[in-house]
Amino acid sequence: MRVAKFGGSSVASASQLKKVADILIRDTERKFVVVSAPGKRFAEDTKVTDLLIQLGNLSNSNEDYRTILESILARFQEILEELFLPTTLVDEVRDKLQSIMDGETVYTHKMDALKATGEDTLAQILSLYLNSLGHPSSYVHPQEAGIIVSDEPGKAQVLEESYERLYRLRDKEGIQVIPGFFGYTKDNKLMAFPRGGSDITGAIVAAGVKADLYENFTDVDSVYCVNPNIVDQPKEIHELTYKEMRELSYAGFSVFHDEALIPAFKAKIPVSIKNTNHPDNRGTMISASRDLTNGPVVGIASDAGFLSIYVSKYLMNREKGFGRHLLQILEEEDISFEHAPSGIDDMSVILRENQLSSEKEAIVLKRIQEELRVDTVTIERGLAMVMIVGEGMNSTIGVTSKASTAFSSAGVNIEMINQGSSEVSMMFGIKEEGIKAAVQSLYQTFFEA
Amino acid sequence: MRVAKFGGSSVASASQLKKVADILIRDTERKFVVVSAPGKRFAEDTKVTDLLIQLGNLSNSNEDYRTILESILARFQEILEELFLPTTLVDEVRDKLQSIMDGETVYTHKMDALKATGEDTLAQILSLYLNSLGHPSSYVHPQEAGIIVSDEPGKAQVLEESYERLYRLRDKEGIQVIPGFFGYTKDNKLMAFPRGGSDITGAIVAAGVKADLYENFTDVDSVYCVNPNIVDQPKEIHELTYKEMRELSYAGFSVFHDEALIPAFKAKIPVSIKNTNHPDNRGTMISASRDLTNGPVVGIASDAGFLSIYVSKYLMNREKGFGRHLLQILEEEDISFEHAPSGIDDMSVILRENQLSSEKEAIVLKRIQEELRVDTVTIERGLAMVMIVGEGMNSTIGVTSKASTAFSSAGVNIEMINQGSSEVSMMFGIKEEGIKAAVQSLYQTFFEA
Repeated sequence: MRVAKFGGSSVASASQLKKVADILIRDTERKFVVVSAPGKRFAEDTKVTDLLIQLGNLSNSNEDYRTILESILARFQEILEELFLPTTLVDEVRDKLQSIMDGETVYTHKMDALKATGEDTLAQILSLYLNSLGHPSSYVHPQEAGIIVSDEPGKAQVLEESYERLYRLRDKEGIQVIPGFFGYTKDNKLMAFPRGGSDITGAIVAAGVKADLYENFTDVDSVYCVNPNIVDQPKEIHELTYKEMRELSYAGFSVFHDEALIPAFKAKIPVSIKNTNHPDNRGTMISASRDLTNGPVVGIASDAGFLSIYVSKYLMNREKGFGRHLLQILEEEDISFEHAPSGIDDMSVILRENQLSSEKEAIVLKRIQEELRVDTVTIERGLAMVMIVGEGMNSTIGVTSKASTAFSSAGVNIEMINQGSSEVSMMFGIKEEGIKAAVQSLYQTFFEA
Repeated sequence: MRVAKFGGSSVASASQLKKVADILIRDTERKFVVVSAPGKRFAEDTKVTDLLIQLGNLSNSNEDYRTILESILARFQEILEELFLPTTLVDEVRDKLQSIMDGETVYTHKMDALKATGEDTLAQILSLYLNSLGHPSSYVHPQEAGIIVSDEPGKAQVLEESYERLYRLRDKEGIQVIPGFFGYTKDNKLMAFPRGGSDITGAIVAAGVKADLYENFTDVDSVYCVNPNIVDQPKEIHELTYKEMRELSYAGFSVFHDEALIPAFKAKIPVSIKNTNHPDNRGTMISASRDLTNGPVVGIASDAGFLSIYVSKYLMNREKGFGRHLLQILEEEDISFEHAPSGIDDMSVILRENQLSSEKEAIVLKRIQEELRVDTVTIERGLAMVMIVGEGMNSTIGVTSKASTAFSSAGVNIEMINQGSSEVSMMFGIKEEGIKAAVQSLYQTFFEA
């Protein structure tokens, strides 16, 4: 039994929905379908969700929203017509959006309710379409499905009891289509999930119905071993472990937000990344373990926008509590740090630049100087993290050597190395301008040699 | 104007003292001399300081100490006779030791007072000897010199005001001989310095009299770039910076206890390591900066006896305060840590094994599990740290690459790398059994290639 989730580009138009239906019909194991709202049909197109947000903003500021409302309805109208389905649904959607904007409903959070309409309508359309093709299907509303969430508009968290309720869906006949992106609180309030919302719904449903596989259909053939904007046509990754995926996601891999998959990971359900447009391609399988046949490194990730706070103080290493105190200052200023490499008389703290506004910078510098009485404290901005990821890397002699040789042959100085905690990754700090050269050189070393 | 300090082996016998006198006479800049107590004359010999400690222990437990007392006096008697000096000093020393043991003096700490007698007597002998050779010299008692210390038996700390007092010694004629290892409190109590005591006195005197150079005479030709027990006849280091010295001392370099030199470092006085037996050899000069002509790496240090506490927890990097809390548990259990490399969902803390008794280990593991609710916590013992040190290493591309290639060609897996905070060192964690192979391979790479 499988759960298939289709992303925005997979459901952007009638022609895309035909592909979706083909995929579903082809394998009777695909009993559960989770859908996003219609995405972009072409590069300059606007996603339905973004149109719904505009609608909400205009309505909130009492401006004329009629044009936007009509263009949203036109998207659904067009899809319904091209699939030869009755367009009465469009009027229902119009009434629903209107009542949400008029505040006539029980929805406590207008924006969440408006946004959710995209997924909700598309799920109904897909179910209608499958039935019209002679494949029994039912639309299952998240509340009916049992997706119970916390009362946090725009960042709802699934509650444990949802899984037991979802499990009951297994017995239902036909293909069940569930809209992604939202659930309901115990007192029936609609709440949207955070970023990656439909992926979250898919993962929750997969965990709840104890699926054998969670198929995540998107518009790429697979996860690539390196950012295709840096290396032209990089190799595909066919197998990944959860851990590897999580490490890669940390530094710039954007196939999806890795945390969206947590429910599936926790339930140990394998996740398959597939392309709706080329469903026969192998794609990428993410599971708890994998064969280690292709060398220790599976992917290279990179991300800019880091900074380092460097402090030095003679005899620091005799001072019990120094490191703790430094991290505590950051914590008290509500700043998250990423790494804290230390020498004997010095310590650096690496964090994302967005954590440190110039206002906070001044406060932090002052507190470090006054409370820790350091000899030096400096801040270096414009750092990037480059990460090589792979299970088994830690037990393979020579990976560090190969990696660092790749940096030096690219003429990039390594400012920082963080290795030794994670068994599946090695992290290098460099100056931002070196990212491209370094990543290309690492790619050559680990994937083309 | 120079301060020359002679270690235990340099003053172990009359023949050694003749070398010391030669060295002093040869250069009139050597106006201040600090001496240790007589050390070992041969491998199985006992240092006078150790004999004095035995004397104190026997006296404290009311046992017969006469044999030990006589052997101490015999050491001085022999030196005096061989240098053709009057032996009346021996009787003075006998009376003094006796009165300390009988508790008839104002000394509050018997053991400190007994131990100090070795340095004190030797200083008097050297001064007598220089005068007998026709070179005006005076013995300067630490109290007279103005070495004022805190009231902490066996671990006295110099007080700031000492420096001003010492500066007055500049005007005195002749070679001034000052016993190392002890000072006096403001209320006239004798207090010994901690480990490296005579080195500390030398550094204090050098800082006080604003010497141009602090010469530290010992029994090695120089500081070596690697432990001679691991690499046969390693290269000598002729120039080192304070920072490099400190980093090297951290991991197993034992020429002297680096903290002993702090007063000289703070006053920016260059320190020269020389061999009393080969005073014409170049030795090692330690100063604030050095020429970077011989490549980025100046030395390789290694030390065993480390362990790693590894914790992992899914989504750790979203948990503000996790790292701080982990370090705080250690701090509250009075455990010093050395490094804390971190991944996304995991963190390791490296510490010296002697910091974690099995009793404390149980407490720490329990607290980590209960307070941080981690997924995993494991402890790995038997780790070693290997460190390469050199100013300018940080700005030289390819050092990491060369170093890590050295490890892999020695077949040693790198468990941890800590690079990025200190500008003058790079630290590698490996399993203890790999030390020899790794250090030899690094030596070949950086010093023989």
